[in-house]
Amino acid sequence: MNLKKMVGYKAAEFVEEGMTVGLGTGSTAYYMVEAIGKRVNEEGLNIVGVTTSHRTTEQASELGIPLKNIDEVDHIDVTIDGADEISDDFQGIKGGGGAHLFEKVVANLSKEVIWIVDESKLVSKLGVFPLPVEVVEFGKGQLFRLFYDKGMKPQFRKKDNGEDYLTDSGNYIIDLQLDRIENPHELAQWLDSLTGVVEHGLFLDTVTKVIVGTEEGPVVKEVER
Amino acid sequence: MNLKKMVGYKAAEFVEEGMTVGLGTGSTAYYMVEAIGKRVNEEGLNIVGVTTSHRTTEQASELGIPLKNIDEVDHIDVTIDGADEISDDFQGIKGGGGAHLFEKVVANLSKEVIWIVDESKLVSKLGVFPLPVEVVEFGKGQLFRLFYDKGMKPQFRKKDNGEDYLTDSGNYIIDLQLDRIENPHELAQWLDSLTGVVEHGLFLDTVTKVIVGTEEGPVVKEVER
Repeated sequence: MNLKKMVGYKAAEFVEEGMTVGLGTGSTAYYMVEAIGKRVNEEGLNIVGVTTSHRTTEQASELGIPLKNIDEVDHIDVTIDGADEISDDFQGIKGGGGAHLFEKVVANLSKEVIWIVDESKLVSKLGVFPLPVEVVEFGKGQLFRLFYDKGMKPQFRKKDNGEDYLTDSGNYIIDLQLDRIENPHELAQWLDSLTGVVEHGLFLDTVTKVIVGTEEGPVVKEVER
Repeated sequence: MNLKKMVGYKAAEFVEEGMTVGLGTGSTAYYMVEAIGKRVNEEGLNIVGVTTSHRTTEQASELGIPLKNIDEVDHIDVTIDGADEISDDFQGIKGGGGAHLFEKVVANLSKEVIWIVDESKLVSKLGVFPLPVEVVEFGKGQLFRLFYDKGMKPQFRKKDNGEDYLTDSGNYIIDLQLDRIENPHELAQWLDSLTGVVEHGLFLDTVTKVIVGTEEGPVVKEVER
């Protein structure tokens, strides 16, 4: 079975009548949005969605999910999103799809955050997945050099045609190949402090529920916060 | 005498042959750029400028000052810029002109940073001048509410025609009327940690020389770092 579809549909079950729901971005979140769209259309489920990318806005609109802008809601009940890597202690890396800035804004406003992944995303320590860092255009080469000098193996993210990838905010992404992140909080604070860094892909102390797709079916893990 | 012109011209004296010079933005920096332009044209001073805004790029180009992009230089010898407020212990607020992101990128790469101000900018504690915070469009209303709830008296910066002011990076500015900032480092770290904040106007442990314009002439203060 398609594990992404399995967890996407499972997660949609946690959405309840009247909720404001953060809708993530990516190939797994795609199925969650699809499943919520079905519930809206088939069960008459009454919710409001808040999207995290232009792509998800497009998909949710087409499915007829009522949407509000992030600034039009005063809270979000639950956000469901994929993740690129989740450690033993439930810290995460996101941003493989380049939407981690909007995803983090939405997650931060959410009472509950559900991540939907297949087993391959579970690791003991973060860092095998390249850490995305969104940076402004001005001085991006200086940040690249700083990361390079620190042995962080930076790479500007490119589109398939070789052009620079730009985020929905018009910024660039530098992916850092760190292999093993010993102290994610320390790294996050350092990245936050850098001028020109808009946002990084470390999502710390964020997730409250992880749904893992396995060949035996979806496994739901509750996270104490 | 025009105090802005006095300190602008005084600061230009600290520029030496062969230097890479960060060129600030604003009504005081304007005179410094003008004075450096004169030295380039009249003395044949050989320098490279790195600008901090589209406005300064325009002015410096017209004066014939050779320019390089921030990513084309491997260091900056000295940056000269204005400041909106300087405390007793030489911490600063900048960004009244909306260019603090680029100004901070350039200042961070500079061996020496000179601020040129008139006496009215010197305060015991920072905070009377509204602290500029550059934020991305997505979720800017949520950040505004957060600041409002904390009593930080936020205001979106507007242009004279009432439209939102946009920075050279296409972001918005929220000005915080804090009146008195007891712990600038703590505030800076908190602002850095907020998702959606691109950069704030606190320039901490940055300046190495302050040139103050007084009726009796310019006063140069060296700062131990």
